[in-house]
Amino acid sequence: MAVDPRFHGAPHPQDLAAVVAAAGGHVAAGTDTTRRFAGAAPLHSAGPDEVSFLDNRRYLPALRGSRAGAVILHPDLAAEVPPGSVAILAAQTYLGWCRVLRLFHPPPAPVASIHPTAAIAADASLGAGCEIGPYAVVESGAELGAGCVLGPHAVVGRGVVLGPGCRIGAHASISHAIAGREVVLHPGARVGQEGFGFAVTPTGGFETVPQLGRVLLGDHVEIGANSCVDRGSAQDTVLGPGTRLDNLVQIGHNVRTGRGCVLVAQVGISGSTLLGDFVTLGGQAGVVGHVSIGDGARISAQAGVSKDVPARQDWAGSPARPEREYKRTIVQLRRLGR
Amino acid sequence: MAVDPRFHGAPHPQDLAAVVAAAGGHVAAGTDTTRRFAGAAPLHSAGPDEVSFLDNRRYLPALRGSRAGAVILHPDLAAEVPPGSVAILAAQTYLGWCRVLRLFHPPPAPVASIHPTAAIAADASLGAGCEIGPYAVVESGAELGAGCVLGPHAVVGRGVVLGPGCRIGAHASISHAIAGREVVLHPGARVGQEGFGFAVTPTGGFETVPQLGRVLLGDHVEIGANSCVDRGSAQDTVLGPGTRLDNLVQIGHNVRTGRGCVLVAQVGISGSTLLGDFVTLGGQAGVVGHVSIGDGARISAQAGVSKDVPARQDWAGSPARPEREYKRTIVQLRRLGR
Amino acid sequence: MAVDPRFHGAPHPQDLAAVVAAAGGHVAAGTDTTRRFAGAAPLHSAGPDEVSFLDNRRYLPALRGSRAGAVILHPDLAAEVPPGSVAILAAQTYLGWCRVLRLFHPPPAPVASIHPTAAIAADASLGAGCEIGPYAVVESGAELGAGCVLGPHAVVGRGVVLGPGCRIGAHASISHAIAGREVVLHPGARVGQEGFGFAVTPTGGFETVPQLGRVLLGDHVEIGANSCVDRGSAQDTVLGPGTRLDNLVQIGHNVRTGRGCVLVAQVGISGSTLLGDFVTLGGQAGVVGHVSIGDGARISAQAGVSKDVPARQDWAGSPARPEREYKRTIVQLRRLGR
Repeated sequence: MAVDPRFHGAPHPQDLAAVVAAAGGHVAAGTDTTRRFAGAAPLHSAGPDEVSFLDNRRYLPALRGSRAGAVILHPDLAAEVPPGSVAILAAQTYLGWCRVLRLFHPPPAPVASIHPTAAIAADASLGAGCEIGPYAVVESGAELGAGCVLGPHAVVGRGVVLGPGCRIGAHASISHAIAGREVVLHPGARVGQEGFGFAVTPTGGFETVPQLGRVLLGDHVEIGANSCVDRGSAQDTVLGPGTRLDNLVQIGHNVRTGRGCVLVAQVGISGSTLLGDFVTLGGQAGVVGHVSIGDGARISAQAGVSKDVPARQDWAGSPARPEREYKRTIVQLRRLGR
Repeated sequence: MAVDPRFHGAPHPQDLAAVVAAAGGHVAAGTDTTRRFAGAAPLHSAGPDEVSFLDNRRYLPALRGSRAGAVILHPDLAAEVPPGSVAILAAQTYLGWCRVLRLFHPPPAPVASIHPTAAIAADASLGAGCEIGPYAVVESGAELGAGCVLGPHAVVGRGVVLGPGCRIGAHASISHAIAGREVVLHPGARVGQEGFGFAVTPTGGFETVPQLGRVLLGDHVEIGANSCVDRGSAQDTVLGPGTRLDNLVQIGHNVRTGRGCVLVAQVGISGSTLLGDFVTLGGQAGVVGHVSIGDGARISAQAGVSKDVPARQDWAGSPARPEREYKRTIVQLRRLGR
Repeated sequence: MAVDPRFHGAPHPQDLAAVVAAAGGHVAAGTDTTRRFAGAAPLHSAGPDEVSFLDNRRYLPALRGSRAGAVILHPDLAAEVPPGSVAILAAQTYLGWCRVLRLFHPPPAPVASIHPTAAIAADASLGAGCEIGPYAVVESGAELGAGCVLGPHAVVGRGVVLGPGCRIGAHASISHAIAGREVVLHPGARVGQEGFGFAVTPTGGFETVPQLGRVLLGDHVEIGANSCVDRGSAQDTVLGPGTRLDNLVQIGHNVRTGRGCVLVAQVGISGSTLLGDFVTLGGQAGVVGHVSIGDGARISAQAGVSKDVPARQDWAGSPARPEREYKRTIVQLRRLGR
């Protein structure tokens, strides 16, 4: 694929053996696995020295017309590969494609360097090989593991601990937090600020309740651009390992998630709500406070969850209910509309 | 409560008399009010030298098992306090707890200091005791009252006036604005930028209408992380005293609110809409432009307000209507779903 | 109108001839077009040396009581203008008003200057007359056209190309992008960061798919405060000329819009969705991925678009459907609620 060299490094050429291994696939016996490939590309644009993939039958026409030198696809579709193209058979097709892309385009390694304008407290500690960008700020007592990357203007607050390989994007800020390894904050993400907690006086005034908790981010957590994760009030706000937040997501104080949760853009989770493992929420979904969403539950885009959701159920709508019920309601509403 | 000393100062020990006074409560005659307490904690973890509280019957089991040395609770529940624990009777229980927490954990006072990297215009004026962080920017003609705190990278624009004790968080920006005392912008908040106003040409081009107003923030207004408040076009955008915005909230140009409004995360108020006093909007609610929401009205999470809401009414749904009607509709929709 | 001189320059006086020309209107024969006007103001506050406008019959009472020296309005309403006030007849009334306001209040021209604290890479290139603010960062290989303005802390990433007259607001960041002329990023906007793309391993882990595309911003595109536009994964994310995003909007990777689209605050467009020309989406609307919205379609506030929308249709609701159908449904739901 023609990546723009202004922004992306050129692909690293690979031989077929490495591509097949990365894809977790196999090729027909007798295939020349020393054959070199220059890069990866979509079916419609790939050339004979490029690898492509198909993971959806909708693109079979594109496959038939493709000039790709090799195509990663499911064994069931092996017969669809045009002659002259090597079929790389991989049951986990999309994962295989992802790993082949990463082979050709490995993420850039940190360049060990501290920009002269970075303001790093004397008692902060930086592991080996950190890359600290211009105007980044690292406050007193903060500890960065090896190979962390701070973008321009990133702010790591007092006492914050980042595990090895964390990446804090431009303009992101993190305070009152402990992060595991390879945690990523995309530009403008906000972690650790005071949550929305206050008491009301008899005359309608508000007094802030001290927010004395922290944010704990498990290994490999990723937080999208301009997303917000508030620290806990009396306990901690916790995102379990591997959990990913898209952009403009809100996590209220004291929320806890298990591992591998996925929160698409503009989702909002109110305070003290608990998510199990592998919970997914579609874009703009909202969840009230103090409820539980069980392991593997899937919440639709724009849903409004107002009570507990059992594990492995799919809920939709506002107020959210089991998807089957929601769909029947929609069918009835369509009738009303005619 | 075990606060993490990486991030939070240790609690300041207090004698019972001070705790009772802060809580606005009273204890049984003859109680030794010189008794010392080390801190405050939730019921399940508090020790004999800690104060706790109960403000919801749901936690009575936790109360019965608690080792807390003193518990703040409503006079009606006085009999539930375990023997050995001092009952601090306070009708406004949560407010009392808030004030006791603040007694043990007072918010840190500004440290009068101007970081050498702060870029402060020669004709800006700073009151006594301001704390200005690294890479903060204060533009020409800006005026900061006594004891203001600017976090790293905060930007206070040309001519902006901040009353005493304002706090502008990391990466927040404020322009075209006049703020009262103790106004707080959390990290990444955006105040005073150009609103979304343009005219359309016959060929479909857009021309920006000059936005010549300001933002006026009353005393004690708080604006959450990454929230946005646009300046007015011909008049001002106004947030009344004590009004609080959670994170990722949008306030369009020319909106005006009364005092003590509460806008939970991801709420959006379109331009020229008016909120009275003490209006509350649940998470992700939206309001069209040019309508009025009366004093004390309460709008549900995810509601879509498309017309005026009378004072002290509770509305829900999208399009929003009175909550009673909304609930009947939901009941009917559930029937349709079965 | 009394603009606050703390924040806005005083209006530039104009003679009537210039005002009429800007308004694209005409006045009665014999009118003295050398008459001077000091500024522009709303009907209720304008004085005899100010110009005003009316573009909605709702304000006729204000017109009748107005002391404005001249009023821009539609020819059909010419008779409504009070005696002593000059009627400036313009069919495109609001556009005329916009242009007259811009005549009195021209946007400030860039002040060619580079703040000494700006961190500009040696191989970045800046066109003539750029205004670069404190702590702005311009990375290696970036190219800024003539007259670009970077606010405090703005970040222009490696290789980014900005056409002439672009304005990057305080704390905004742009990477992996090519922008045309007069593109505006409001404070805190985020353009070019990695999109939300990952493959799932059999054990529930996530691996990021390299996001190898860019963001292309057409001439005159404007992106609101704290809005996010992710770069493409294999192709580009594209906003067509003149398209405007309000605040807190999310654009997922690989989205493409035509010209002149309008996305009101807190809208979210999922990845790979296509918008034609002049598509408008009301506040908080959401669109799933991989669908198409045709030219001139209008999507209501809070709508949830889950399939293709034909050109020039108005859709509303969640799931969204044609507005007529939606309104009938709402009528039926109201009956259910009673």
